[in-house]
Amino acid sequence: MNDEYYMRIALDLAITAEGQTSPNPLVGAVCVKDGQIIGTGAHLKAGTPHAEVHAITMAHDHAKGADLYVTLEPCGHRGKTPPCTNLIINSGIRRVVIACMDPNPLVKGRGISQLKQAGIEVVTGVLEKEAAFLNRAFFHYIQYGTPYVTLKAAATLDGRIAASSGDSKWITSKEAREDVHYLRHIHDAILVGAQTVIADNPFLTTRLPHGGKNPIRIVLDRRLQTPNTANVVTDEAVKTIIFTQVPLEEQNKKYDSNFVHKEVIPKSQAFLPSVLKYLGGIGVMTLLVEGGSRVHSSFIDENLADELYLYLAPKLIGNGTSFFSSEKRNWMKDSENLYILDMQTFGLDLRLHAQFQKEESASCLLE
Amino acid sequence: MNDEYYMRIALDLAITAEGQTSPNPLVGAVCVKDGQIIGTGAHLKAGTPHAEVHAITMAHDHAKGADLYVTLEPCGHRGKTPPCTNLIINSGIRRVVIACMDPNPLVKGRGISQLKQAGIEVVTGVLEKEAAFLNRAFFHYIQYGTPYVTLKAAATLDGRIAASSGDSKWITSKEAREDVHYLRHIHDAILVGAQTVIADNPFLTTRLPHGGKNPIRIVLDRRLQTPNTANVVTDEAVKTIIFTQVPLEEQNKKYDSNFVHKEVIPKSQAFLPSVLKYLGGIGVMTLLVEGGSRVHSSFIDENLADELYLYLAPKLIGNGTSFFSSEKRNWMKDSENLYILDMQTFGLDLRLHAQFQKEESASCLLE
Repeated sequence: MNDEYYMRIALDLAITAEGQTSPNPLVGAVCVKDGQIIGTGAHLKAGTPHAEVHAITMAHDHAKGADLYVTLEPCGHRGKTPPCTNLIINSGIRRVVIACMDPNPLVKGRGISQLKQAGIEVVTGVLEKEAAFLNRAFFHYIQYGTPYVTLKAAATLDGRIAASSGDSKWITSKEAREDVHYLRHIHDAILVGAQTVIADNPFLTTRLPHGGKNPIRIVLDRRLQTPNTANVVTDEAVKTIIFTQVPLEEQNKKYDSNFVHKEVIPKSQAFLPSVLKYLGGIGVMTLLVEGGSRVHSSFIDENLADELYLYLAPKLIGNGTSFFSSEKRNWMKDSENLYILDMQTFGLDLRLHAQFQKEESASCLLE
Repeated sequence: MNDEYYMRIALDLAITAEGQTSPNPLVGAVCVKDGQIIGTGAHLKAGTPHAEVHAITMAHDHAKGADLYVTLEPCGHRGKTPPCTNLIINSGIRRVVIACMDPNPLVKGRGISQLKQAGIEVVTGVLEKEAAFLNRAFFHYIQYGTPYVTLKAAATLDGRIAASSGDSKWITSKEAREDVHYLRHIHDAILVGAQTVIADNPFLTTRLPHGGKNPIRIVLDRRLQTPNTANVVTDEAVKTIIFTQVPLEEQNKKYDSNFVHKEVIPKSQAFLPSVLKYLGGIGVMTLLVEGGSRVHSSFIDENLADELYLYLAPKLIGNGTSFFSSEKRNWMKDSENLYILDMQTFGLDLRLHAQFQKEESASCLLE
C-alpha cells in the first residue's frame, strides 16, 4: 500500500458520481490511519457536502492523526458549503495527499497554503494525470466558460450514419442504443439539429432501468423550423432551448410551454460559438451532440468538439450519409486527429471513445 | 487438468505455424502420461511430419499407455508422409482425444475408425469450435476449392482510404503498417488491382525483422495496363500472376521475367470467381486482398470476401475515397454484416479483425 494505492481508491469513488455533480468537479476522498481505511467519500451533487467532509465524518474522532487522500485540492473558501480546509484542520488530520490542483480561481493553491500554514504535511501530484483527466470537462469549463463538447454517432464500419434512402433504423444493436441513455445521463445538455427533430421526432430524454437525469434539450434551428408538435416541444420532462437566427419580430412560431425557450443569435455573431457561450453562462458544463452529419461536421470543422463516442456496427453499406463531411480537407495532413481513449463492445457493436487532439486537453491514452 | 486443458495447449502449438502449412491445416498435438506432458508437436510445413509424429517421437517409449491430444483427426492414409494412425497404434497410445474431424474426403472419419478398430479409446469434440475456427481457411478450401479471402484496408474513422486529392500516405502509423507484413506472411497470395500497381508501384513482399514468407502476387488487370517497369514485374522475389481479359492475340505487353505469368480470363466468364478458381487450382488456400476501393467493393458485392482486417486511424477527413462503395444497397437491411473477431491497437491505431457473416462459416465471436 502506497500513496498511489489509496489515491486510486479515491479516484474510483469520484467517478461513481459521474453526471451528478455539474457544475462541480468529481472528487473522491479516502481517510487512512495505521493502514486501515477509516473513511471514504465522494462529492455527489452541487450544494451537498464535499468528498472530504464525507470521509472525515465517517472517520469521526479517528481522523486525528490520520492521512487524507483527496483527488482535487480541498477548497479554502465558502461556496455553497463551508471551506473544507477548516474541517480538515479542526479534525486533526496530519497529512493530506492531493492528486491535482483546483484550477478554480477561488481555490487554486489557496487550499494547499491554508493546510500548510496549519502545520499539515501536504503531498501533491499523486496520480495527477488521472485526476486531471477525470475532471477534463470541469477544467475546460473553468478555463473557457463553455461546455465540454462530446459528439456521439452510430455508424457502419465504412462510416455511414444512414443509407442512401435516409434509412438509419437501426444501425446499431439494442445494447448500443441503450448505452446512449447512459451518455445522456452523464451530460448536462444534449444537442441536435432541427433536421433531426423533423425527421426522427426524438424525446432526447434518458431512459435507464433505474431512471436517470434528463439533459437539457438544445435544438439548433437557424430558420426556426421545429414544429409545435415536436416531442421536444410538447414533452415537459425537461427544458428545451431552441437557438435560432430568426429575429423575434419575424418569428411565426410560438411554443405554448413553459419548458421551451427560444434564444435568438443575431446573424452578426458566429452561431455555434454563441450557442456554447450561452450554454456555459447557464451552467452547462458538458454537452452531448447527437448529430446529424451537418451538425457534427460544423462542430469538427469549427474546432469545437472535444470528444467522440463512435458506435461502430460491424456492417458495410457502401453509400449514404457519412457522419463527417468536410470540403476543406484535401490531404491526409488536413485530417482531424484524435486519441482513442477506450473501446468497449455492446452486443455485436463496438464503441470507440476518442478525444480530439488539442494542445490544452488533459489526455489519458489507451495503454 | 482436464481434456480441455491439454487440448488448449495443442491449439496453442498449432497456431504457431500459421502461414507455414498451406495447403495443409494447422495441427497441434500433446502426449500426456500420469499428468505429465511427455511430448508436444505442431505441423510446421506441408511434406514434413505431422503434429502427432513430433509429439510421439518426443515421448519415445513413454508413449505406451499415454493419452494423445490432437486438434484435428489423425490421417489414416499415405499422403506425402505415412499415415499417422499406424504410428499411434504402434506406439501403444491408449487414448486419443480429437478436437475436430478432418473434412478432407481422404481422412473424414477413416482415421478415427482405424484407431477404434485397434482398440484405442477415442474421444472427439473437445474444443471443437475453436479447432474448426483455427482451420477455417483449410475447411473452406477443402469445401469449395477456392482460397479463403481476407480483405485488408487502412481507413480513417469516417471510412476513407484516401483524401480527395488521392493522398493516402500515410493514414495509419508505422506500427500498423508493419503489422501488414505479418498478414502478408500468413497468406499464400496477395491481390491488388492494376490501379494500385500504377499509382503506388508496391513490391507486395513481406518485410519482417526475421524475414518471412512472400505471398504470390496477384494483379487484377482486365485491360492489361501493368507497366513493364512495375516492381511486381521486375522484382523476382516471388511469382506474379496477372489476370487479364485481353485475349492473347490482342496483347501488346510482354513481361521479360520467368516470375511473371499472364492468365487470360475469357470475357464470357465471371472474372473474380474465375480468378479464385484458378488460384485454388494452384494450391492457394489463403488470399489477402489489399484493395483499392474498387477491388474491395467487387469482392464484397459479389459475396466473395470471408474476412476483413480494418486498420482504423483515429482521424477524420470528411471526404475522399471510401474503402467500400456500392450502389446497390439503399436500406440498412441491405448492408453486409460481419462479426468482430478481435481488436488490437498498433501505435495510435486500431485493428479490427472481422468475419463476414455467412451461414457456412465457422465463427468464433468475441466474448
